[in-house]
Amino acid sequence: MSILLNENTDLLLKEKAELWFKALRDDICTSFENLEAELASNSINGDMQLGKFKRSEWIRDTNNSGEHGGGGTMSIMHGRVFEKVGVNISTVHGTFSEDFRGKISGAAADGRFWASGISLVAHMHSPFVPAVHMNTRHIITSGDSWFGGGADMTPVFEDVKDTEDFHESFKHACDSHDEEYYPKFKKWCDDYFYLPHRQEARGVGGIFYDNLNTGNLDNDFAFTQDVGRSFLDIYPKIVKRHMNKSWTTDDREALLKKRGRYVEFNLLYDRGTTFGLKTGGNTEAILMSLPPEVKW
Amino acid sequence: MSILLNENTDLLLKEKAELWFKALRDDICTSFENLEAELASNSINGDMQLGKFKRSEWIRDTNNSGEHGGGGTMSIMHGRVFEKVGVNISTVHGTFSEDFRGKISGAAADGRFWASGISLVAHMHSPFVPAVHMNTRHIITSGDSWFGGGADMTPVFEDVKDTEDFHESFKHACDSHDEEYYPKFKKWCDDYFYLPHRQEARGVGGIFYDNLNTGNLDNDFAFTQDVGRSFLDIYPKIVKRHMNKSWTTDDREALLKKRGRYVEFNLLYDRGTTFGLKTGGNTEAILMSLPPEVKW
Repeated sequence: MSILLNENTDLLLKEKAELWFKALRDDICTSFENLEAELASNSINGDMQLGKFKRSEWIRDTNNSGEHGGGGTMSIMHGRVFEKVGVNISTVHGTFSEDFRGKISGAAADGRFWASGISLVAHMHSPFVPAVHMNTRHIITSGDSWFGGGADMTPVFEDVKDTEDFHESFKHACDSHDEEYYPKFKKWCDDYFYLPHRQEARGVGGIFYDNLNTGNLDNDFAFTQDVGRSFLDIYPKIVKRHMNKSWTTDDREALLKKRGRYVEFNLLYDRGTTFGLKTGGNTEAILMSLPPEVKW
Repeated sequence: MSILLNENTDLLLKEKAELWFKALRDDICTSFENLEAELASNSINGDMQLGKFKRSEWIRDTNNSGEHGGGGTMSIMHGRVFEKVGVNISTVHGTFSEDFRGKISGAAADGRFWASGISLVAHMHSPFVPAVHMNTRHIITSGDSWFGGGADMTPVFEDVKDTEDFHESFKHACDSHDEEYYPKFKKWCDDYFYLPHRQEARGVGGIFYDNLNTGNLDNDFAFTQDVGRSFLDIYPKIVKRHMNKSWTTDDREALLKKRGRYVEFNLLYDRGTTFGLKTGGNTEAILMSLPPEVKW
């Protein structure tokens, strides 16, 4: 299994992290393609073609500096269970702009940075299968180095067992590292994925953490890997529970309206979007998070 | 004709401006409802019911201060020519938050403000009828007072004559007040309605102006009225040119994708959206600008 890749110990942590994000990407894509194959033939989209991920590489444009600042790979699938899912990995390096440095730990005096991560957003055909987001990353600046990430789920019609199991999966990952993590990172997620102008949560939450450097970055990396494993364990189970259910036009309309809130959050508030657009990231990759079809 | 209302000269300028925005709203709504009735019965949406504007009032929530800070009226129509059009008027007053004052002329020392305006966004069923935006406003702060506004058009498939006529209409309004206005306000519009992350203009432009106070606010108000009249003159003509044309599924898909750029602009960059959400405006009214259906 590709996840074993990171057993390799003669690499720098940044190299191990980058390899891990790739391996996790591979395992997630395989798992999601398997779900496409498991859709019942008599379900609503049962006669559609199975989705397969398509990969495309991009190279970071460093604004005419002539220096390539890394790049990434987008993996996108338009399937019959997954209406649109993107799993992006990227490893970029460069120098933060003057007005951005003060906002990033360890970058105020010297704006150079290195960042690697995986970012995933899935929008589903079925109004009964929750949309999901997962992201983990490793960032190094001149004066600091840390891990960050999280996952959150956005159902249209909340299923209490789904919510409980999703939270439990990440609680398990957290508790095996530090019992203070789960309550802290769950609240961080609730606070972050909130739309003040609607006075609404984006979804049912999950966990969110950033600037995690406990003084033992190997452990922080191990925690970040467990977050990825927890996601890979729980989300496909939740998809399978609901993917063969029928839905009505009204259910689908409710999904399309709910997605409008997702767009509002991502474009008005999401720091990942801002970070990406301000650091010369790939626009298509950054805006991959936007749903395929939306109504307001 | 209701536009004659503003011949009344024994009112304060702010009262005249507020009445004008209402009168313009009435005339625009009447004109757009007439277009609904003029759609040919054998056109694609010819068997749909005629749209009629529905009005709803809102009162500004001044964050538990107990003081009502004005409010507004939304007029929304979901018709057969106009897929979704909103014509909002509002008159609000209050005090800018500390961090907002420095950004507003005349508000740094004393954050009290009064603002009245009309804001219109139309998204059309037909991919051959351009979407349009028009907005004019009068703002008074402790130390300043001005008019602002503009209009811009967003076709999916540009028609050169439409573009020329749209620009010509606003050039006419500008030139009758100051020959420097048109080139200045056209460029301002091009600069403003631009998506840097896409390196794309939002549409074909129009005019945009803000903080207009020449020392003769009566003249600035007269110019602002002419901008409204120019819009009311030209846009219905452009709608009529194309509204009876047939379109294909591919044309419609192109429209839905183009609307994605509109959403990106409004949520990532539009100052009106930011201003509204930060000053306790009505969320539904502010986000009325978002298209009814979008694809990415």
